[in-house]
Amino acid sequence: MSNVEPLLLAGRWQASLSSEGSFRAADPTTGDAIGPAFPVSGAADIEAAVAAGSAVAAELAAAPAERIAAFLDAYADALDADADTLVALANAETALPAPTRLRGNELPRTSGQLRQAAAAVRSYSWTQPVIDTAAGLRSHRAPLSKPVLVFGPNNFPFAFNAIAGSDFASAIAARNPVIAKAHPLHPATSQRMAQLAHTALLAAGLPAAAVQLLYQFDNPLGLKLAGDARLGAIGFTGSRGGGLALKAAADAAGIPFYAELSSVNPVFMLPGILAERGEALAQEFFASCTLGSGQFCTNPGVVVVPHGAEGDAFVAAATAHFAAAAPMVLFSQSGLEHLTQGIATLRAAGAELLAGGVVGEGGFRHAPTLLSVDAGAFIAQPQALQTEAFGPVSLLVRVTDVEAMVQVATAFEGNLTGTLYRAGDGSDDAAWQRIAPVLRARVGRLINSRMPTGVAVSAAQNHGGPFPSTGHPGFTSVGMPAAIHRFAALHSYDAVPDALLPIELRDRNPGNVQRTIDGVTGVSDVGAGS
Amino acid sequence: MSNVEPLLLAGRWQASLSSEGSFRAADPTTGDAIGPAFPVSGAADIEAAVAAGSAVAAELAAAPAERIAAFLDAYADALDADADTLVALANAETALPAPTRLRGNELPRTSGQLRQAAAAVRSYSWTQPVIDTAAGLRSHRAPLSKPVLVFGPNNFPFAFNAIAGSDFASAIAARNPVIAKAHPLHPATSQRMAQLAHTALLAAGLPAAAVQLLYQFDNPLGLKLAGDARLGAIGFTGSRGGGLALKAAADAAGIPFYAELSSVNPVFMLPGILAERGEALAQEFFASCTLGSGQFCTNPGVVVVPHGAEGDAFVAAATAHFAAAAPMVLFSQSGLEHLTQGIATLRAAGAELLAGGVVGEGGFRHAPTLLSVDAGAFIAQPQALQTEAFGPVSLLVRVTDVEAMVQVATAFEGNLTGTLYRAGDGSDDAAWQRIAPVLRARVGRLINSRMPTGVAVSAAQNHGGPFPSTGHPGFTSVGMPAAIHRFAALHSYDAVPDALLPIELRDRNPGNVQRTIDGVTGVSDVGAGS
Repeated sequence: MSNVEPLLLAGRWQASLSSEGSFRAADPTTGDAIGPAFPVSGAADIEAAVAAGSAVAAELAAAPAERIAAFLDAYADALDADADTLVALANAETALPAPTRLRGNELPRTSGQLRQAAAAVRSYSWTQPVIDTAAGLRSHRAPLSKPVLVFGPNNFPFAFNAIAGSDFASAIAARNPVIAKAHPLHPATSQRMAQLAHTALLAAGLPAAAVQLLYQFDNPLGLKLAGDARLGAIGFTGSRGGGLALKAAADAAGIPFYAELSSVNPVFMLPGILAERGEALAQEFFASCTLGSGQFCTNPGVVVVPHGAEGDAFVAAATAHFAAAAPMVLFSQSGLEHLTQGIATLRAAGAELLAGGVVGEGGFRHAPTLLSVDAGAFIAQPQALQTEAFGPVSLLVRVTDVEAMVQVATAFEGNLTGTLYRAGDGSDDAAWQRIAPVLRARVGRLINSRMPTGVAVSAAQNHGGPFPSTGHPGFTSVGMPAAIHRFAALHSYDAVPDALLPIELRDRNPGNVQRTIDGVTGVSDVGAGS
Repeated sequence: MSNVEPLLLAGRWQASLSSEGSFRAADPTTGDAIGPAFPVSGAADIEAAVAAGSAVAAELAAAPAERIAAFLDAYADALDADADTLVALANAETALPAPTRLRGNELPRTSGQLRQAAAAVRSYSWTQPVIDTAAGLRSHRAPLSKPVLVFGPNNFPFAFNAIAGSDFASAIAARNPVIAKAHPLHPATSQRMAQLAHTALLAAGLPAAAVQLLYQFDNPLGLKLAGDARLGAIGFTGSRGGGLALKAAADAAGIPFYAELSSVNPVFMLPGILAERGEALAQEFFASCTLGSGQFCTNPGVVVVPHGAEGDAFVAAATAHFAAAAPMVLFSQSGLEHLTQGIATLRAAGAELLAGGVVGEGGFRHAPTLLSVDAGAFIAQPQALQTEAFGPVSLLVRVTDVEAMVQVATAFEGNLTGTLYRAGDGSDDAAWQRIAPVLRARVGRLINSRMPTGVAVSAAQNHGGPFPSTGHPGFTSVGMPAAIHRFAALHSYDAVPDALLPIELRDRNPGNVQRTIDGVTGVSDVGAGS
């Protein structure tokens, strides 16, 4: 196995202890294997990772906040400084556009997210201290004191990478060790990031095993790992099938499992806005649906459009955009196959093909694809017609009136986002008032007249939603400090003397941590008067 | 079935639609059946409850905050005004002491909790609004828009009653309908409370089906109900076996399941404090362990005591207290049997009986029971020796030194509380520093030199803890507003105009809701300047 890359395991780069083979990345534009061979881990690697992460959990939980923040900042700086190499690796492994997407957008987002996590660590904002002086109780959010397992997805080699993305930043911010399971479609990118993380970790004086990287293991081992009670929590971004199997294993062991699963992100085009700017919307919709070859969690997968002249014009314009576009490169052969199957499922349930629907030549390519179905069919077969076709694919649902829109909205299961496009002149507001409450209850982020594909890293963001879009409706995977709460335990201290309390719960508050003392939120010391 | 009591189902008191029999309460002091017959619900009752709760969920979610708060306050007032009747019913069904426990403590706690929930509703504190003006995003916590199912336990007929306790108050505060599954050991108490709730609900102008009451159903129907995807969440307080079975059903359907399961609440007696006041501590321990016949979630079930003269004196004094006490009345025959089995499990694992260990005469009685085991045995069989014996029972674990205390602490699974008794002169502080981090990671509330049985209803409380004491380490079932977060969804609004936003997310903030705007927390309007 000397020609197989090492793992970041138990605090150092080392050869797999129990490799069950190896794999290589592929160039999605050709299908050819590229880069070195990476190990498929066996049980010994996994055991070593969990044992090493567990062994340093207490030390990391006790680490000073400044040291954690310094690591996050230094890692962010290292990512930015290494942009040339990282972008080249990720572009080769994913075929995502290097200048616009990877360098211009995703890498700055990733380093920015790490810096936002660092800021939340320094301010203690994620800990939400509450002090009740009369009861002698003080509570805050605290480390899990167990390692967090993170599964990264295929579609964001930087911003959701298991070794650098929001789950990673959040788990580390809460002072938990991370066992990163990279996505096997971009192993060299993940390895490069892990090298930068490891160096920054050592420089910050944190335990070396606080950050570990595994590239791949088979499903039975993954399920066993997900049910290992030594884990504090699991973050997962990926497909519904894989996610639900891992969730079941974690649930049985009482391990919080934060999943970001599939979502079709319904978009409702209200009548007035189609009259205002239907042609422009068709372009906006096409651009959003095909961004990153449509491989977005928030891709607009279902668009509800009224019958009638304006609706027909929108559909015709959208169809022309889809029909004119060349096939787009997907991440993998299996992704291409899933996409093809998804389209077949939609068509079998009655969806009519308007444009695309064909595989392209060379590597993993598929034509942008637009389908259409009537509201009645959608309501009759809501499960099949909400099948996610992960890629540049969208299903139009044609409705007769606002009442039918309400019925369609009622048929949606939990989604990350829901969008209502409404006219600027207020003519759609009555329709909004009818549909929005129904859609609101089914989505994490309700959007007005914008496509869902932009996900700002913001304290007010919710990249989450009701099951099955995620595993819990109360948490977001993007946006600090809220994303950190997923990897924290609530701790209360009862009659514990000041000197034995965590620093942010003590009487004196030299760091100006925002706290709620006897119902009043501010930065004062306990006993300072109100 | 005309002699069987009605259910509060679908907005009115009505006969069971599908009774599968009936049951009566028992007088725990005699074992004799008391009170009227109550229905065991079949599938039709359950379907009607879920359908009715679902049908009013949207209306309740849209209800004005003041109306919700008015209901909670009016219900609290009605409970207080009905104290004579409620206390008499609960005393007859549970044998808990009427003046001290039920009237003096638990009923005021229950009405106070409802009023705290009302205050959280009026202040919107539970919604935690966050506004990012640059990104155009606004988030808050919002109703689940689905009914919440609450299972009440046997041991708090008021404060954790499914129709009046913290889960009920929390779920209603978040504007979700409640389907209450009363504990079948106190049906008349639950019925009386439900009558008061129903009247208050109608007076407040809220949908009549927002509060429903079922008394009992069999296990297969319970599991089917727990997995009904129409539910928004489940609150459960009770035994580990029943709780984990329901949790598995809920998990499979993606329904958040907030369980409060068993806990042995380890207490560590550090050497110095035993020298300071070992005799007094023995009395304090005995009183806590036998409060409410020991039927407390936070009962001190395992007490770690050093070998040596002071430890021996503590054990001798505690043993004398236990040996001198008469058998205590438990809630039920099955509770008595579980207690007897629990003691047998502890003894089979090597625990030595110091006092008690016998069933009493008349009704459901068991002698206060003290056992002891060596640290080595505890560490060798941590599972068996953490068996919860729900009642006036505690296991002493004898240790040689602080290092052995650390090892014992390491062996504990997740608990609601952990206590360290330390000397006032600071002589135990080094031992605290060694043991506390280990215990801290395993408990929800870390207590200094107090017995765990008092659970203040406080914003800084954590009545929660790591699995298996609860199903999620990030939530508390007691203390407003945090307990409300369990029954809320995170909602984000993206570019939604002011007039279409929920009131607490709008630019103007006439209600002085505390919000975080662009990183600054306060009560100002958006755009008011900083």
